[in-house]
Amino acid sequence: MLGRKLTERLARDASVTELALVDVAAGSAEIDVADVAAPGAAAALVANRPDVIFALAAVLSGEAEADFDKGYRVNLDGTRLLLEAIRAVGGGYRPRVVFASSIAVFGAPFPDPIGDDFQATPLTSYGTQKAIGELLLADYTRRGFVDGIGLRLPTICVRPGAPNRAASGFFSGIIREPLNGEDAVLPVPDDVRHWFASPRAAVEFLVHAAAIDGVAVGDRRSLTMPGVSATVAEQIEALRRVGGDEAVRRIRREPDETIMRIVSGWPGRFDTRRALALGFRAEQDFDEIVRVHVEDELS
Amino acid sequence: MLGRKLTERLARDASVTELALVDVAAGSAEIDVADVAAPGAAAALVANRPDVIFALAAVLSGEAEADFDKGYRVNLDGTRLLLEAIRAVGGGYRPRVVFASSIAVFGAPFPDPIGDDFQATPLTSYGTQKAIGELLLADYTRRGFVDGIGLRLPTICVRPGAPNRAASGFFSGIIREPLNGEDAVLPVPDDVRHWFASPRAAVEFLVHAAAIDGVAVGDRRSLTMPGVSATVAEQIEALRRVGGDEAVRRIRREPDETIMRIVSGWPGRFDTRRALALGFRAEQDFDEIVRVHVEDELS
Repeated sequence: MLGRKLTERLARDASVTELALVDVAAGSAEIDVADVAAPGAAAALVANRPDVIFALAAVLSGEAEADFDKGYRVNLDGTRLLLEAIRAVGGGYRPRVVFASSIAVFGAPFPDPIGDDFQATPLTSYGTQKAIGELLLADYTRRGFVDGIGLRLPTICVRPGAPNRAASGFFSGIIREPLNGEDAVLPVPDDVRHWFASPRAAVEFLVHAAAIDGVAVGDRRSLTMPGVSATVAEQIEALRRVGGDEAVRRIRREPDETIMRIVSGWPGRFDTRRALALGFRAEQDFDEIVRVHVEDELS
Repeated sequence: MLGRKLTERLARDASVTELALVDVAAGSAEIDVADVAAPGAAAALVANRPDVIFALAAVLSGEAEADFDKGYRVNLDGTRLLLEAIRAVGGGYRPRVVFASSIAVFGAPFPDPIGDDFQATPLTSYGTQKAIGELLLADYTRRGFVDGIGLRLPTICVRPGAPNRAASGFFSGIIREPLNGEDAVLPVPDDVRHWFASPRAAVEFLVHAAAIDGVAVGDRRSLTMPGVSATVAEQIEALRRVGGDEAVRRIRREPDETIMRIVSGWPGRFDTRRALALGFRAEQDFDEIVRVHVEDELS
């Protein structure tokens, strides 16, 4: 989803002269399909020396937890092979690598807010693989092999499209489905707090990171992205202001112990002063996130 | 050095019934030599299902910086292959893995003191490889494949034996050489502060970690070990109290810009309350570190 939106955004950007798209899944006819962890695949990717490489490819959280080997192969080995392939080009080639990390690198218990200096102690294999990617990115950057920036993306909300079975799916579902005249399930209490940014904001993080001054970033190459801290109750009130009571009545409360346990290990609020000082911007409140969803997906 | 001292300590321990020693370098006749990153080597290591595995094997800081590929192969791939080999045994096998990490996982700038929640943003490839090892250890533990404890060891001082060319070598050299009636070179100013534990304390950290209750450790499986925070000036005064002015006169000040730059990125003081609460103990002051050296090496 993020890759598709980023592609649309870059296609409108006059400074982008050439765009090569590679996906591990066969998404559409114009996109090359490659398994970056397969022998030779990473080398082929960088053979024409792109100036900027967006490394979004990942086995997402639920799948990385269900399939331990696949998660490590794609998320860890894939990232490392990409960095190695860039290093192997040599001849002063040092592209900007924008690495999509995640707030999943953090694991409870947390201070409130979570500062830029807080340790990464993930509680999922996905978060572990992203945290390792950050460390590799920083070391390859320090050694002069790449010019990497890692972005710890908030939970993307409102995610467009069909409901998925990710543990975080309901955060988008309770907004998206009611605005579509459909019912949505809420498996956690209203006081659960989490950290969000819209798909539009996430794409702008990536685009901004492509052009940012690497020297200003310093040795700590990964940045927690700004976002909106909101409780489920605040999400619902934002929905009410756009869709009215009728939309809110579409939300059905069905407590799910498993999802509650998973979500209780997730962060609720960050102090992202490093990213803000470097010019990264997210929405101001959850009302704005709902408005962006209506503008980008429902008009 | 640490492996040898640990072996001597375990050989005196009545609860240890069998001890298998494996080194990447041919150290002595009774020690198997194996490259844990070579195919099949890790599987052979765990075939007889040891209860406790001490993972000390490493390419040290200077060599990992000089030989990028070797550092990643031994320190990262070697650790991962060991964890994978343990996982492959299956059948409920879940040994205690004591992983020797390092305060090199931290990189300046620092708060003073550095707390247990502080981020790992290493400034060396060695520190990066150790930080990745910590993340793998935590995830393999969370998934139930191993029961891991990572120990971020302080700089070991006074390191016995001949001077080496490690950037940190002078911290031991300025004590060890004068007490041997030899000259020592001091390449940094007297106000440089660093974090130390004796070889004896480090061995006891490892032995303690072998028997500690894993449940009490929780999800954050790596612990910064207690130590002594001392400046070079405090080291020198401790030396004077044992060896007199004559010993101190053996220290020759030869400022070295390269070493000064490296050392300026190193930590000076930690708040290690997690490790202290779990029963890990180091020396109380640098005088005690010098005394331990005299007792263990010079008597």
